[in-house]
Amino acid sequence: MTSSAGVVDALGALAVPVALLIGIEPKTAWLLSVLWVLKVVPGIPGLRQLRRVLVLESGPLVSVLVIFLMVVFLASVAEYFLERDVQPQTFGSVPAALWWAVVTLTTTGYGDVVPVTPLGRMVAAMVMISGLGVFGLWTGILATGFAAETRRDNFLKTWESVSKVPFFAALGPAAIADVTHMLRTMELPARTMIIRKGAQGDCMYFIAAGEVEVDLPGKKVQLGEGAFFGEMALLGNNKRGANVSTTKVSRLLVLDLVDFRVLMARHPDLAETIDAEAKRRTLENK
Amino acid sequence: MTSSAGVVDALGALAVPVALLIGIEPKTAWLLSVLWVLKVVPGIPGLRQLRRVLVLESGPLVSVLVIFLMVVFLASVAEYFLERDVQPQTFGSVPAALWWAVVTLTTTGYGDVVPVTPLGRMVAAMVMISGLGVFGLWTGILATGFAAETRRDNFLKTWESVSKVPFFAALGPAAIADVTHMLRTMELPARTMIIRKGAQGDCMYFIAAGEVEVDLPGKKVQLGEGAFFGEMALLGNNKRGANVSTTKVSRLLVLDLVDFRVLMARHPDLAETIDAEAKRRTLENK
Amino acid sequence: MTSSAGVVDALGALAVPVALLIGIEPKTAWLLSVLWVLKVVPGIPGLRQLRRVLVLESGPLVSVLVIFLMVVFLASVAEYFLERDVQPQTFGSVPAALWWAVVTLTTTGYGDVVPVTPLGRMVAAMVMISGLGVFGLWTGILATGFAAETRRDNFLKTWESVSKVPFFAALGPAAIADVTHMLRTMELPARTMIIRKGAQGDCMYFIAAGEVEVDLPGKKVQLGEGAFFGEMALLGNNKRGANVSTTKVSRLLVLDLVDFRVLMARHPDLAETIDAEAKRRTLENK
Amino acid sequence: MTSSAGVVDALGALAVPVALLIGIEPKTAWLLSVLWVLKVVPGIPGLRQLRRVLVLESGPLVSVLVIFLMVVFLASVAEYFLERDVQPQTFGSVPAALWWAVVTLTTTGYGDVVPVTPLGRMVAAMVMISGLGVFGLWTGILATGFAAETRRDNFLKTWESVSKVPFFAALGPAAIADVTHMLRTMELPARTMIIRKGAQGDCMYFIAAGEVEVDLPGKKVQLGEGAFFGEMALLGNNKRGANVSTTKVSRLLVLDLVDFRVLMARHPDLAETIDAEAKRRTLENK
Repeated sequence: MTSSAGVVDALGALAVPVALLIGIEPKTAWLLSVLWVLKVVPGIPGLRQLRRVLVLESGPLVSVLVIFLMVVFLASVAEYFLERDVQPQTFGSVPAALWWAVVTLTTTGYGDVVPVTPLGRMVAAMVMISGLGVFGLWTGILATGFAAETRRDNFLKTWESVSKVPFFAALGPAAIADVTHMLRTMELPARTMIIRKGAQGDCMYFIAAGEVEVDLPGKKVQLGEGAFFGEMALLGNNKRGANVSTTKVSRLLVLDLVDFRVLMARHPDLAETIDAEAKRRTLENK
Repeated sequence: MTSSAGVVDALGALAVPVALLIGIEPKTAWLLSVLWVLKVVPGIPGLRQLRRVLVLESGPLVSVLVIFLMVVFLASVAEYFLERDVQPQTFGSVPAALWWAVVTLTTTGYGDVVPVTPLGRMVAAMVMISGLGVFGLWTGILATGFAAETRRDNFLKTWESVSKVPFFAALGPAAIADVTHMLRTMELPARTMIIRKGAQGDCMYFIAAGEVEVDLPGKKVQLGEGAFFGEMALLGNNKRGANVSTTKVSRLLVLDLVDFRVLMARHPDLAETIDAEAKRRTLENK
Repeated sequence: MTSSAGVVDALGALAVPVALLIGIEPKTAWLLSVLWVLKVVPGIPGLRQLRRVLVLESGPLVSVLVIFLMVVFLASVAEYFLERDVQPQTFGSVPAALWWAVVTLTTTGYGDVVPVTPLGRMVAAMVMISGLGVFGLWTGILATGFAAETRRDNFLKTWESVSKVPFFAALGPAAIADVTHMLRTMELPARTMIIRKGAQGDCMYFIAAGEVEVDLPGKKVQLGEGAFFGEMALLGNNKRGANVSTTKVSRLLVLDLVDFRVLMARHPDLAETIDAEAKRRTLENK
Repeated sequence: MTSSAGVVDALGALAVPVALLIGIEPKTAWLLSVLWVLKVVPGIPGLRQLRRVLVLESGPLVSVLVIFLMVVFLASVAEYFLERDVQPQTFGSVPAALWWAVVTLTTTGYGDVVPVTPLGRMVAAMVMISGLGVFGLWTGILATGFAAETRRDNFLKTWESVSKVPFFAALGPAAIADVTHMLRTMELPARTMIIRKGAQGDCMYFIAAGEVEVDLPGKKVQLGEGAFFGEMALLGNNKRGANVSTTKVSRLLVLDLVDFRVLMARHPDLAETIDAEAKRRTLENK
């Protein structure tokens, strides 16, 4: 990673001077500074995830690409054959017909090269419909890969944190794997409002790292690592009862209402712990 | 929510007078009344659901957007370089080339700016194929997010109702969570036909709220909250035996034939209850 | 259904004469015979399935449509404002701008109306990118709905047949629901080749209705309802050992190699039955 | 398969001479050599998989195609009727209007034929929006089919190998089916680097066939069929401790970190085996 960053740096820094040195005119040489844009690449969020999808699904993606190229090739030869006499200007060579085929199969359709003979238009119609098919296959492959990757990624991020929350420590490893699939990790900067009083509540939070402050009437309560909050809204009245915000950079685990209910049903002991804590808090704040 | 509605109201109401006051000519000022369209936003069905998908999947969506912009940027510089001498009119500046790149990468393809040099066309072909890829990734991400969101939303809507139907009360909480995944909520106005006599039947209904009327030969039977109907078509003969319609605004839980069978297999006691009720009804209506 | 078919019939049959009678010129009137095309509708395979998806997902689909229309409306007003002075011919009225917006947002891009001002092009670029988003959302919704519908449909078609195959009768109802999810129904006309000798085998078949003929060396064996075949290729050597074809219209249940293995693992008694039958057949045909 | 390959060969080899013999002019005849491109078809990776998806989903795909054709047909008659008087050149016949309809519905939009009347444009707008719908349905169907096919394919490829790895032999057949769903097969040529020292580790490997070499400080260790490696990075410190590369063509089974944890949770005995081996190796390499 570090070495490839160095190559990009060198490429960005040296491209312009080198171009100037070897005698390319300045107006063109300066364009090469566009290579600095490549510096952005490692910072793109989720890029690693996208790359993994592309690698894992490379087999079917390449096979769609090959089909794409074959359609382009056969269609352009057919159109060259059908249109060259009528439009020697635009369909006069196979490369020109190839250009038409790519523009058509991707459904871009500039309109600079258009078949006019009835047979040529029939071939074109088939190319366009194939274009929809290629789109569909491509998307289907990427959607499938992406769904799997998202689940995997979330699991990896969440697993670490779950095992650190004492609340879940009582669960066996199989149950922890189960719980991990239900939770979502959320990274928050300091002084961020998490819950707004009076809002509709549909999830509860566990603190994996950091600290939050609950703004109760007359006092402020700090909750640290391993604590949970927001459970009241899931246990009957679904309006949030107090503002909650982070005091430092925090990592929270979010449990949706849906999964809260499934979890409580499967692990009645967790349900009791949450219930007991909720009652204790209600009494305390009366 | 209320305050943002107020802002939209004020914007819609004040835009035109303010524009007139500060001296914009009337013809243009009146266009600002288009902002009233924003009043529609909160009323769009399912908008909350779409927003949640966009928020939860924002990471990968942004990363696709960044890739999109990088392709646009690199492609437009390349085309500017390759085409500016041949077509100074259309590719004479980088912004003009940027316009071409966006039009091409989204596969819109107006055809007002088209590369003509062989190298320029090769770059353009690659941009178009990348366009398909961007489409595919985008769709894949949204499809994944949407599938998860739909399941979650249905669960939330249905959960409340299920626990109120006495028929399901006998089940433990784990089984209720299981059943909830199988049911679909349906809100109906009064006097709506639910079942038409003689039609093919492939689901049964539980009444979560409201009332329905079964139109039996010679008499009309009312069924209230907690009752179920339509089970006959699932227990052998699959033609509906009577018309059923709502008498007031009702919320029904729909159980598909598929899930009916899975449910009956997993919870034989429920199967017996339904069987017994079906027999009782058959006898009564003979 | 029958009454709507009648309406279509009447519409198709009466449109032309009525049009001629009320004085429309013949050349135009004959065009109405195109309405006969609607007769095809009920015969489209899988149409019921598509309609169910559209109905069940109508909420989010409508919400995407509303978003689509809002973008079209706001964009066309903005472009009218930005381009009307430069191109009074094409952007001279809001309806003309609406036409541009629809052509652009669907990424059709005829190129008959194209913004030329820098600001107008920026708005256009945003419209195109929104177009990709609308595509993505739409597809995501339909893909989600379609996946659910496909699973449901297959289950319904297969369930009936499974319970009629004695081989599965030994299983409890929960296991039958489980098995049903694994099987795929296949309807075949008479005299259709199902298995070709020497081909790669990756599934086995159960006969739900009809009859097949196994073409063994020196004799032909008939298998009737409830029998199974093709299991040899899954139990070791994966080349098909004989030609098999239907003798009458048949309905087969196909069990894929994947599911065969999962099934055998979960229900060892079924595995034994299949093994025993395979051995008996091998001995018999030696 | 072999006979169809022969036909393609013959077609490719004979097309040009036959065309020359029957008197087609050479310039055109040589174009037929393009048929050699069909030779590539059997070599396309994943083509079998794509074909299976198309076959299994042919029902809904055909129904979308029929809808597509109906929209094209009705729209072109409508546009012919609305535009023929204004633009006799381009909309003067139904075939010309059909061409417009295909170009529009696939969102290609050449712009050579464009409606100009207000009603014609409204019909066109509806055709474009239907185009998005057709895209969406098509993609949804293919995505659904592809997801199922991918899972099936991976299972088939992996199953064989899993049962040959002694490590998994202790598991019952149900657990093996379970494990198979978690593993991914990877085919590698000889002398390929699998693990790079110091890299982030998020999976472990089982050797189904072939051999790998672990490059420890001071010695090289060979691991053969049935051995596993890379487990250290999953058991605490997640930096790879040594380079690992293949010595011959190998087939590896990859277990992702996610699945590693789920597997360890469900089968504690496997966890112990891996733990013990990891400790033994750590001691040995001290």
